[in-house]
Amino acid sequence: MDQLAKALGARIRTQRKACRLSQDALALACSIDRSYMGRIERGEVNITVEKLYRIASLLSCDPASLLPPVAELQPG
Amino acid sequence: MDQLAKALGARIRTQRKACRLSQDALALACSIDRSYMGRIERGEVNITVEKLYRIASLLSCDPASLLPPVAELQPG
Repeated sequence: MDQLAKALGARIRTQRKACRLSQDALALACSIDRSYMGRIERGEVNITVEKLYRIASLLSCDPASLLPPVAELQPG
Repeated sequence: MDQLAKALGARIRTQRKACRLSQDALALACSIDRSYMGRIERGEVNITVEKLYRIASLLSCDPASLLPPVAELQPG
């Protein structure tokens, strides 16, 4: 489900930019390693729900709003 | 954030029961170890977003609907 990680990472990146935060600033605020935050946004890692909540909190959005709609992940 | 894991596990259990599935049947369908599924429902582990999507798919619900509202997790 690497499609999911990519879609989730893209949504996190979009929301981070909307908040005018750098990737480094977000990583620091979330206590997540900077290089790991880059991997999250590129969809290279599967994050835990707990990290999702931490990131959403810093981005002032609902965790659910960062989840890609299932319909977008269907093959085809 | 073990409060989050507990609230998420409780919501998964509620939805599983609504689907009239046993914990074993859900674990098997999701390719998740049976004992691990028990730990998920008891909130002893932090699951990945990818597992959340797999579980939601088997429970015929939206992944976002399994996420506990942030307001329920506030201390106090």
